[in-house]
Amino acid sequence: MSRVFNFSAGPASLPLPVLQRAGAEMSEHGNAGMSVMEMSHRGKDFLEIFRRTKQAVIDLMAVPDTHEVLFLQGGASTQFAMVPMNLMGSGGKGDYVNTGSWSKKAIKEAKRFGSVNVAATSEATNFNRIPRQDELRLDPGAAYCHITSNNTIFGTEYHYTPDPGDVPLVTDASSNIMSRLIDVARYGIIYAGAQKNLGPAGVTLVIIRKDLLGRAPDSVPTMLNYKTHADADSMYNTPPTYSIYILGLVCEWLQEHGGLAAMEEVNIRKARRLYDCIDGTDFYRCPTEPDSRSRMNVPFTLANPDLDATFLTESAAAGLVTLKGHRSVGGMRASIYNAMPEEGVAALVDFLQDFEKRHG
Amino acid sequence: MSRVFNFSAGPASLPLPVLQRAGAEMSEHGNAGMSVMEMSHRGKDFLEIFRRTKQAVIDLMAVPDTHEVLFLQGGASTQFAMVPMNLMGSGGKGDYVNTGSWSKKAIKEAKRFGSVNVAATSEATNFNRIPRQDELRLDPGAAYCHITSNNTIFGTEYHYTPDPGDVPLVTDASSNIMSRLIDVARYGIIYAGAQKNLGPAGVTLVIIRKDLLGRAPDSVPTMLNYKTHADADSMYNTPPTYSIYILGLVCEWLQEHGGLAAMEEVNIRKARRLYDCIDGTDFYRCPTEPDSRSRMNVPFTLANPDLDATFLTESAAAGLVTLKGHRSVGGMRASIYNAMPEEGVAALVDFLQDFEKRHG
Repeated sequence: MSRVFNFSAGPASLPLPVLQRAGAEMSEHGNAGMSVMEMSHRGKDFLEIFRRTKQAVIDLMAVPDTHEVLFLQGGASTQFAMVPMNLMGSGGKGDYVNTGSWSKKAIKEAKRFGSVNVAATSEATNFNRIPRQDELRLDPGAAYCHITSNNTIFGTEYHYTPDPGDVPLVTDASSNIMSRLIDVARYGIIYAGAQKNLGPAGVTLVIIRKDLLGRAPDSVPTMLNYKTHADADSMYNTPPTYSIYILGLVCEWLQEHGGLAAMEEVNIRKARRLYDCIDGTDFYRCPTEPDSRSRMNVPFTLANPDLDATFLTESAAAGLVTLKGHRSVGGMRASIYNAMPEEGVAALVDFLQDFEKRHG
Repeated sequence: MSRVFNFSAGPASLPLPVLQRAGAEMSEHGNAGMSVMEMSHRGKDFLEIFRRTKQAVIDLMAVPDTHEVLFLQGGASTQFAMVPMNLMGSGGKGDYVNTGSWSKKAIKEAKRFGSVNVAATSEATNFNRIPRQDELRLDPGAAYCHITSNNTIFGTEYHYTPDPGDVPLVTDASSNIMSRLIDVARYGIIYAGAQKNLGPAGVTLVIIRKDLLGRAPDSVPTMLNYKTHADADSMYNTPPTYSIYILGLVCEWLQEHGGLAAMEEVNIRKARRLYDCIDGTDFYRCPTEPDSRSRMNVPFTLANPDLDATFLTESAAAGLVTLKGHRSVGGMRASIYNAMPEEGVAALVDFLQDFEKRHG
């Protein structure tokens, strides 16, 4: 079988040129005489890969000198603990905006280490929208404000940057990192598991304002203290070297394609094309409010759910795979991250229209 | 440049057939139409890879039903925290045998969560030996006994399994996992970062006795609680899918080569050949006591350290790389894990003899 269009929510599609290059140099990277996987993380060959990758992240996202870039492990779920453990202090408090399953997990974890003020929530409408700035009820005693900038499951995304007042804004950007331009300076911490927009599962990108380092109490495990990793430039222990290398190749691919400004334009086009198709008929329905819609994850339902199984079988046969929606929303979900080409979205739109003609 | 013999202590050599296969199927795995890196961890293709990998670990190590096999992230350094956080309980105590740098890190981390009894140490002789069973001064109040079964930096290895009495034996087996047969039933926890003997950096193999699950207090982060991962069969959050896949290919390669009994024989031969060469001359010297010598990491010094730089330059030119020793020991270190072929050790021995002839 040839390559399919993979609409998985994560791990997700990677750019084919990245995979081809990684495949070609798997056994011998450059003049090293070995695979990247076999390189000592302290050796000059890997250190050069690491340096270039970190610099590419800095360049692509215009990370200011005030912030440090870290490559960690454990995914966003580990960040759910690290953020409160590092920022709350003992008996502290955090503001959290609840926009879905992942926000709820972050909130639940934070409660182990302090108290949580839910500053706003859209749970009453099954998380079909992002709360507006004027809805946020911030706690003056909170040490930070945490948001989930894109909600993979419910298909919503912030199209504004919340202003949390004097405290740092922390965002779980796992599912929209590098899909658009953001002003990094407005964030205290940006974290993202790589497996949606950046690379393979197993590396977590963390961008942290340097003045937030060193606030963790002694009871925090060394590996969960941001300062450990900042002091060692992500080399306190062996980092996930191969995942970092792939992330670097993805960054190079982004740079070759014009960086995040160009990528954002493509993502706007892809999302509009798909939402327009869904909105243009009663056969399909999108549960999210238009102003809050994610450019990355597009959930939609069929008016007749009896057709769901047929839809999934026929779409897979057409080379459009992993379209089944999350059980919290039902129906379908198309994840169209950076690596999903416009042709993939076009093929999906064609299929949606054709399927409606045949079954509508 | 063609492939070299890479004596790196970790990340380290991988079997060439594993790399070749991974490279060939990088863009399209089987009939999936995508890379393993792009597969949803909840999809049937990856779940089959996961199932086979876990079963291969169980088969290779003869893991009994009493134990669970987990694939985690964060390396041994994260285990240094997880072990006491999960097993000590609050205000608890652990016995630790101090056999070098990694033991010391484990001890230091454990002290954040309780108290540590150093049951034995070989620090007085710069960790050139493994304490004997009769030297262990176990604390009757300890909740477990922690050892480092192979010491990557100092080149020592346990050639017996300590008896800790009624408490579970915990071992950091990062640098000798699957290099020899062990009786898993005698251990409470066996953990190992993959990047030496198992696969790429970024996945940590943990084998834990099931009755030790569920002992962590509520204050332990969800991701640092073994029960979280056991309950979810290592899929609580997105696991490091590609690293697990490579680990699975390495396990397959081990099975094709006769499993751990056959591998142990090869490792005994490789180590003997290298130690015999070093012991057979005054030109080289091995700092470790013969009974405690590691089959995996062979440190040695040159009688004349002025020749160190020349040695490293000439060996690299001969395609024998990453031989520089750790600063704690000095001189050289040859790491000869499972994936280092006998030809690699033979080439190193030839080089050692030739170098002595020319510079001795």
